[in-house]
Amino acid sequence: MKIVMIGEAATHQQEIAQALDFPAEFIALPREAHESAQWDDQIDGADVLVAMRFQRKTPPPAFRLLHVPGAGLDGIDFAALPTDCSVCNVYEHEIPMAEYTLAAMLQHEVRLVTLRASFDSQHWSETYLSRTPRGELYGRTLLIVGFGRIGQAIASRAQAFGVRVIAISGHAQDGKVEGPADEAWHPDNLLEHLPRADYVVLSCPLNDKTRDSFGHAQLEAMRADAVLINIARAAVVNEQALYEALEQQKISRAFLDVWYQYPAGSNDRVAPAHYRFEQLPNAVCTPHISGWTSGLFARRYALIADNIQRLQQHRPLNNLVHGRAQQ
Amino acid sequence: MKIVMIGEAATHQQEIAQALDFPAEFIALPREAHESAQWDDQIDGADVLVAMRFQRKTPPPAFRLLHVPGAGLDGIDFAALPTDCSVCNVYEHEIPMAEYTLAAMLQHEVRLVTLRASFDSQHWSETYLSRTPRGELYGRTLLIVGFGRIGQAIASRAQAFGVRVIAISGHAQDGKVEGPADEAWHPDNLLEHLPRADYVVLSCPLNDKTRDSFGHAQLEAMRADAVLINIARAAVVNEQALYEALEQQKISRAFLDVWYQYPAGSNDRVAPAHYRFEQLPNAVCTPHISGWTSGLFARRYALIADNIQRLQQHRPLNNLVHGRAQQ
Repeated sequence: MKIVMIGEAATHQQEIAQALDFPAEFIALPREAHESAQWDDQIDGADVLVAMRFQRKTPPPAFRLLHVPGAGLDGIDFAALPTDCSVCNVYEHEIPMAEYTLAAMLQHEVRLVTLRASFDSQHWSETYLSRTPRGELYGRTLLIVGFGRIGQAIASRAQAFGVRVIAISGHAQDGKVEGPADEAWHPDNLLEHLPRADYVVLSCPLNDKTRDSFGHAQLEAMRADAVLINIARAAVVNEQALYEALEQQKISRAFLDVWYQYPAGSNDRVAPAHYRFEQLPNAVCTPHISGWTSGLFARRYALIADNIQRLQQHRPLNNLVHGRAQQ
Repeated sequence: MKIVMIGEAATHQQEIAQALDFPAEFIALPREAHESAQWDDQIDGADVLVAMRFQRKTPPPAFRLLHVPGAGLDGIDFAALPTDCSVCNVYEHEIPMAEYTLAAMLQHEVRLVTLRASFDSQHWSETYLSRTPRGELYGRTLLIVGFGRIGQAIASRAQAFGVRVIAISGHAQDGKVEGPADEAWHPDNLLEHLPRADYVVLSCPLNDKTRDSFGHAQLEAMRADAVLINIARAAVVNEQALYEALEQQKISRAFLDVWYQYPAGSNDRVAPAHYRFEQLPNAVCTPHISGWTSGLFARRYALIADNIQRLQQHRPLNNLVHGRAQQ
C-alpha cells in the first residue's frame, strides 16, 4: 500500500505505520503540494493521500482515498478530485476547542495574567489592600453561533459553571434544540438575542450562508461589555467591522484564533489579516491553536490508521464525506 | 441598631443599609481595629460587628453578634469574644474559587498568555508553521485535598472537562465519598495517591492537622510534570520545601493565591513570604484573589443583611458557628 502525506500530516507517519498490521510505503511531501501539481507524479497511484487541503487546476493524479486529518472541508476542491476517490475526515477537536473557549472566558473573568504581572513582594501591602473584585462566569450568558459538535462541547462545560447557554442553530424550533442549551433560536433571530450575551462564540462552519455574516450590525448589537470568541473561520466575521469595533471599544474584547490568510508554505510572506489586530489591547490573538493538542493528534491518527486498515480489508470506512464507503 | 464594620467590610455599608427595613447607625473603623483595642470605645454596645478577624489581649468591648464576612474563622480568637456573643460566617466563595482553579488549570494547558505574546503579523508564516501542540485537560487526573464546599465545586466543574477527580477527605470510606468524585481516600493515604495526579489542589481548612502538612515528602511524591494550586491557606504548605521544589523544578508549576503573611494595615511593610516566589518562572503568584469577586460580595452582604434583620426580629440566625442562634 502506498500512503502519501502532505505538510504537517507527514510528521505523523510513525503513528500510522505503527498502527497498521501490514507494511506500507510512505511518501512525505511539502506543504506546497496541497495546491501545486509539482509533486503529482509522486502522488499518482497512491492508495491513500493524507492532506488538509487539495486544490488543482490541472487533471489530478490518481488516488483512492483522500483522508483529511481535520474536520473542515473548505480546503478541498471536490471538483478537482480523481473519479471514484473517497474522502474521509476526522473530528475529536471539539474537546480542545471547548477547552480553548472556556480558557478564554475564565481568563477574561479571573485575569490571572494581569494579577501575576503585578505581584511584587516588595509592595505587598499596597497590592493586597488595593485589590479590586474581579468577575465571575457564574450567572453569565453565553450565546453560541453554530451548535454542532464544537458548540455542544462548549455548552456542556459552560453549564457546569452556572452559565446560561443560548444556542443559535438552524435546527432550533420553538426556542429549543437537542443538546445542552437553555434555549435555542434560528440564525434569522440572531440580532434579537445578541444584546443578551456576555460572551458570543462563533463555532459554525464556513459556507455561503455564514461567510461575512457577522459584521457591523452584529457587532453593534453586542453589548459594550461583551466578549467575542472566534474559533470558526475568520471569514465568518467582516474584517474591517471587527477591527473598528475593537478599536472603538464597541465590544470589550475579542479572542481571535482563526485568520483571514494562512501561509501556503514557509516562504510565503502572507499576513494573517489586513489589520494588525495584535496591536489592539483588547484583542487576544492566537495562531489557530484552539484545536491543536497532542491528545487531538493521538485520537485523530488512530482513527486514520483504522480507516486505512478498513480500506486494505475492503471494510466500510468511517467518517465518509464523499464517494463510496467501501472500495 | 448599632452596626460597626471594620476594614474592607466598611466599604459595603450601603449594601446592608439598603437591605434593612429599619434605620441603623453605622460606624466604619480602620483595618487595624481587628487586632488593636484603640477603637474599642466605638465598638462597645454594638449590636453587630462585621469583621474578618477579631483578636484582643484586653477585655473586649460588648457586642451581640460578630458577623464574619468570609468563611475562614482562623482570624477569630474565640476566647477573646464577649460572653454571650454569637458568631456567624458566610460562604458563596466556592463559586469564584472553583473558577480560579479551573482558570489556572486551563491556563496551564492552553497557554493563551504565551501565545498572545508571541503573535506577530509580521512573522505570521513562522509563527503559524512552527506551532507546537499544547496540552488538554481531557483525561487528566485532579487530586483535591479537602472535599468541602470548595473542593466539590472544583470537582463538578473539572468533571465536565473529562477530568478524573480523586478526593482526599476525612469522610472517605472504601474509596468513596459523597459528592462529585471518581474516588476518595483518607488523608492518611495522601502520599500513595499523589504520584497519580496531574493537578493537586489544596482546598482544606487550616487547623492543627493541616498546618505544615504539605512539605518535602508530599512535594517529592508529586510528578515532575504536575501542578500545585494552593487556594487554602499558605501555612498548609511548608514554605521552604515549596520554594525549593519550584526552584529545582521538582514540580512543573504552582499557582499560589494564599500567603504566609498579610499586612495588618496600610503602613505594615510585611512581605507575603520569606522567599520571593514571584521571581520563579514556574510560580504564578496572585494576591488572594481566588474568592474576590463582585458577585461574591453581592451574595455575602445580602446574607449578612438578612441575618441582621433576623437579629432585630429575634428570629434564628443562619450560618451560626458559635453562641446562640436566637438572641
